[in-house]
Amino acid sequence: MEIRPLDIKRVTVEDSFWSRETELVRKEVIPYQWEILNDRVPEATPSFCMHNFRAAGLLGKKMRTLGRDFEPPRYTYKGFAVFPDKKEDAKEDEFYGFLFQDSDFSKWIEAVGYSLAVHPDKELEKIADGAIDTVCAAQLPNGYLDTYYIINGMDKSFSDLRDHHELYCMGHLIEGAVAYYEATGKDKLLNAAKRFADYVYGVFGREEGKIHGYPGHEIAEMALFRLYETTGEERYRELAEYFIDQRGQAPLYFENEHPEMKGRPDYYHQAHIPVREQTEAVGHAVRAVYLYSGMADMARITGDRELLGSCKALWDSIVNEKMYITGGIGATHIGESFSFPFDLPNDTAYAETCASIGLVFFARRMFSLEQSRKYTDIMELALYNGILSGMALDGKSFFYVNPLEVLPEACKKDERKEHVKPVRQKWFGCACCPPNIARLVSSVGAYAYGESDDTLFVHLYMGSKIRKNISGREIEITVKTDYPNSGKVGIDVKGAAGTGFRLALRIPGWTSDNYTCDTGSLNDGTLDEGYLYIGGFKDDLHHVSLELEMKPRAVFADPRVSEDAQKIAFMRGPVVYCAEEKDNGKNLKSIVISRPVDIKEKTDSEFGFESVSLEVSAARRSFEGAEFFESTLYRDYSDVREDPVDLKLIPYALWANRGEGEMSVYFFIT
Amino acid sequence: MEIRPLDIKRVTVEDSFWSRETELVRKEVIPYQWEILNDRVPEATPSFCMHNFRAAGLLGKKMRTLGRDFEPPRYTYKGFAVFPDKKEDAKEDEFYGFLFQDSDFSKWIEAVGYSLAVHPDKELEKIADGAIDTVCAAQLPNGYLDTYYIINGMDKSFSDLRDHHELYCMGHLIEGAVAYYEATGKDKLLNAAKRFADYVYGVFGREEGKIHGYPGHEIAEMALFRLYETTGEERYRELAEYFIDQRGQAPLYFENEHPEMKGRPDYYHQAHIPVREQTEAVGHAVRAVYLYSGMADMARITGDRELLGSCKALWDSIVNEKMYITGGIGATHIGESFSFPFDLPNDTAYAETCASIGLVFFARRMFSLEQSRKYTDIMELALYNGILSGMALDGKSFFYVNPLEVLPEACKKDERKEHVKPVRQKWFGCACCPPNIARLVSSVGAYAYGESDDTLFVHLYMGSKIRKNISGREIEITVKTDYPNSGKVGIDVKGAAGTGFRLALRIPGWTSDNYTCDTGSLNDGTLDEGYLYIGGFKDDLHHVSLELEMKPRAVFADPRVSEDAQKIAFMRGPVVYCAEEKDNGKNLKSIVISRPVDIKEKTDSEFGFESVSLEVSAARRSFEGAEFFESTLYRDYSDVREDPVDLKLIPYALWANRGEGEMSVYFFIT
Repeated sequence: MEIRPLDIKRVTVEDSFWSRETELVRKEVIPYQWEILNDRVPEATPSFCMHNFRAAGLLGKKMRTLGRDFEPPRYTYKGFAVFPDKKEDAKEDEFYGFLFQDSDFSKWIEAVGYSLAVHPDKELEKIADGAIDTVCAAQLPNGYLDTYYIINGMDKSFSDLRDHHELYCMGHLIEGAVAYYEATGKDKLLNAAKRFADYVYGVFGREEGKIHGYPGHEIAEMALFRLYETTGEERYRELAEYFIDQRGQAPLYFENEHPEMKGRPDYYHQAHIPVREQTEAVGHAVRAVYLYSGMADMARITGDRELLGSCKALWDSIVNEKMYITGGIGATHIGESFSFPFDLPNDTAYAETCASIGLVFFARRMFSLEQSRKYTDIMELALYNGILSGMALDGKSFFYVNPLEVLPEACKKDERKEHVKPVRQKWFGCACCPPNIARLVSSVGAYAYGESDDTLFVHLYMGSKIRKNISGREIEITVKTDYPNSGKVGIDVKGAAGTGFRLALRIPGWTSDNYTCDTGSLNDGTLDEGYLYIGGFKDDLHHVSLELEMKPRAVFADPRVSEDAQKIAFMRGPVVYCAEEKDNGKNLKSIVISRPVDIKEKTDSEFGFESVSLEVSAARRSFEGAEFFESTLYRDYSDVREDPVDLKLIPYALWANRGEGEMSVYFFIT
Repeated sequence: MEIRPLDIKRVTVEDSFWSRETELVRKEVIPYQWEILNDRVPEATPSFCMHNFRAAGLLGKKMRTLGRDFEPPRYTYKGFAVFPDKKEDAKEDEFYGFLFQDSDFSKWIEAVGYSLAVHPDKELEKIADGAIDTVCAAQLPNGYLDTYYIINGMDKSFSDLRDHHELYCMGHLIEGAVAYYEATGKDKLLNAAKRFADYVYGVFGREEGKIHGYPGHEIAEMALFRLYETTGEERYRELAEYFIDQRGQAPLYFENEHPEMKGRPDYYHQAHIPVREQTEAVGHAVRAVYLYSGMADMARITGDRELLGSCKALWDSIVNEKMYITGGIGATHIGESFSFPFDLPNDTAYAETCASIGLVFFARRMFSLEQSRKYTDIMELALYNGILSGMALDGKSFFYVNPLEVLPEACKKDERKEHVKPVRQKWFGCACCPPNIARLVSSVGAYAYGESDDTLFVHLYMGSKIRKNISGREIEITVKTDYPNSGKVGIDVKGAAGTGFRLALRIPGWTSDNYTCDTGSLNDGTLDEGYLYIGGFKDDLHHVSLELEMKPRAVFADPRVSEDAQKIAFMRGPVVYCAEEKDNGKNLKSIVISRPVDIKEKTDSEFGFESVSLEVSAARRSFEGAEFFESTLYRDYSDVREDPVDLKLIPYALWANRGEGEMSVYFFIT
């Protein structure tokens, strides 16, 4: 069964939960990001993204004017990121910012594409078209399009694949170009991306005289498969397959480029061994899940069983050994990397927003390979928790790192936690997370649904309208729900009679299969791998009522997660909860959950919309004793004093929206 | 009242506990260290310490032969540490190793001095004399004696006070020279140290044309006060006072040397503000306590009340906010430094052995200023726990870092914990801790006792004989005890009749003043600041029987220590306990202490001598629940399962003597 994400233009999301997020992206994030790309936000580090495209364009103009007399720049390395002392000092023909700065435009245009697909906006489209003109004007006649080397000297282009993100920029350009093309039908940027990919196809490969390398930061792999599926051009598939197959083959390309790496396994770039031999998720978490997503694409497209095996092993490695309860991945800030199995510290967590987004990419692709909720449960978990936590409720500040426990003083005074911020930050010098959230949220409809020829898979529950085509007949599916506040979902299916249409509803694992589904005059449906398949539609309109048991739960981690020993966390449906100082006072660590665990739910509107908070019977404990040293730090214990408290918990994604304070997901249980 | 440490030659320690340690140092550590200094231990990084003295001596010979034709080396920086590819490749006239390598000799000769003082050994003395000849042959005619600059070029000597430890080496040389002089009466090395100090006195100071700097790594301060008190030469006192007074004065000397430091407070070197304004212990912990020790010396010698105030504030800052229960200090490996108040992580602790040793130096000096157990309680705590833990029971391996919780896998796989070792290491490239333990243990008698004109202060209880002089009459005090296994101490005082002699016995704070003292025919004594003063000796022989209540106790940390929230530790007398995997199995974190706390003591002989272990009623807990995600990492909680266990605890200082495994000092309490 071939499963595709639903074409985003065939889904309209009108949902109490998600519309707030998509509107925030449309009204706040995308416009703000455009200002950032153009260095018009005084308090943010200038991006120089559009500046660089203009500078490269100027060079092209010069080249065309001078013809044979044109003297191309000779490359000299100026550093991973270059900033002028003052923005005003920037020269119009120089490159500034991080050397992967081009990708900021691509991420923006991708979000714009998704947004336009579901919410046409002439003004925004005009701005986007103008930006595309600037970008395309920077492209070299041979198709190459990375402003860092165009401006600084092409003689060293592709000379540092490990660190100089040209192929990463190409990958993002493709993703953005395809999204914009699919939304608007305009192919100018798509053609530019194709020409860049054609150039790369000519330069990279196994053949003699070609570069035998592969991307230092993966993404080109999945992007090229997407370009292949959009255009049907075999060479993009070939190039993507080459990148995946070549990775980690001996002699290791990056050791050749960087001889100092010899002898140390290159986990960071997932280039230590060939991908088909990889079974443990290692290294930089974002790089890893981008690679695994490309591998899953390849397994689907080529039917490579060995590669599928690796994908499944890597998935299990993440989900069974290396994932926070929030769907966060990457437990250590050292290399923004996966740590060893079961090492999931809460207070020094990295759990980068982008890494969880990459996990969603991987999950969707794994579902295409194997139709099981084991993938989409995790997709939902990451989305509602570790990803949405990345953006403030006003869409104006962002978390890069998503810790599960915060003591603000420690973040400020302990260098080991300096990556952990107690409040969201305006924008980052290396700004991957905000645009990544933007592109994911804008296209959430494409994650909510998947389709095969005759089946609509409902992965996520949100108010929406879907048009599904079966053999030229259009079926309209309307979903109404207050999810995740409520577990009730109503689905109208119109026009399915006689089409062989099937509805496949995900029964999340967290329900423990406690659900009811009223299918009216239809059969009850069959549960398979966590999906309830309902078929036999015979009337013009059918109504299906699904109710998922949405009760609060106490949850604990595998005992091998030593950081969570003796602790429990709280969930309700897919939503992970946390306690904040704002509701519970300082010193959250002195609070213990009473046994038996008693959780009440309450509807809350203090965030400006309805959300469900929890109240748990707990006690604030203190130890009683006599002083024994003159030191007041340590005392003889005599007894425990317990003062009962109701611990208030809010959805994790909403934390740090009411000022700075302590936060914790886990609590000791007495 | 002026308090002095007792002259080490007037104490003979013959104690079931301490003699084992001092014999280990005498028979294992000192000889091994001598091999190390001479690069004769194949498995250890060569030290090049004696090599460098020989190389500098060769240069001197050349200088004397060539006279005016001698061309001195011009300085070029070769790095903080230089090692040849192979030991055999070392050139006889080159400097190798760390640039503070000279100090390894000084620490060794200091330990040798203390050892010879209490245990004459002709063979060792001969070796030491030979070494001293080599060292003295390296000294320049002007008195300068740091082989790094003698060999590499004197033109840059004292040009990098912050990082190039010349004054640190001088400090250690003085400490070693005085110890050796006091033990043997031989003054060759003492004279060399004086000449070096004279040279420095001529070069440093407030006067124009002199260097206005001070040591980057403190120790010269307390060493110079010691030299002053040994020789009576005022200029050493002056120089020490200058170093202390000048430190942190604006303009900051290190900012001048290292302009990149401008604008960041120099906590690391305790040079952010003048010392009299310092109230919080900050920066590199060893540097800090060495400085504070020098400050306390100065406060005593000069009677400077303001300086005394700073010393007291800094003491309180350490002891009330920044000290582990083991007497370990320096909570972060970043800069081997103090962290912010109450930040005392157990698993990433630094708690360097040397820092606790420095705390003992500081404590002894504070006691000279203020006769209170508040200082000597901490001295005892550090000695019996965080310092002795530094050395293996066979004297052949050492901990630099003394964590309070260890998961061996994490130490190996988590870069954030790579400073934490689950077993002691043979020897370190930067080998400060082993010789520091050696010199402290060898002179433990001088820490056990202090004296004023008429009083003998007994700080630590150990089997020993002391000769105390009052106005030309010799009193003999004999102490017999099994401390710390038992709290019973018997003291014979002979020849005190009519001398006005007073015995001042420390009643440790951990007894909560539960003790009995049978003074026979004498008055009961008066308790003041934790010392029981017994006087009125009228017979030739008096026997005093002291019994300190030595019962096991559960102990907890200030609730502001968030890492220890909900946890208790165990002590008995001054001894902190820990649990090891060896006795209790893996996954120590699943064990919780049952309430009410029930602790039994047992005599144990598995370490080759009698020690007291504890057994605590506890439970191994596991959470029961159903799987809910397909992921096995997180599950719905339904109940707690508790399997009763007896948690076995051993003295913390003995951990990691039975192979590698988990260790923990703190445990959750239900």
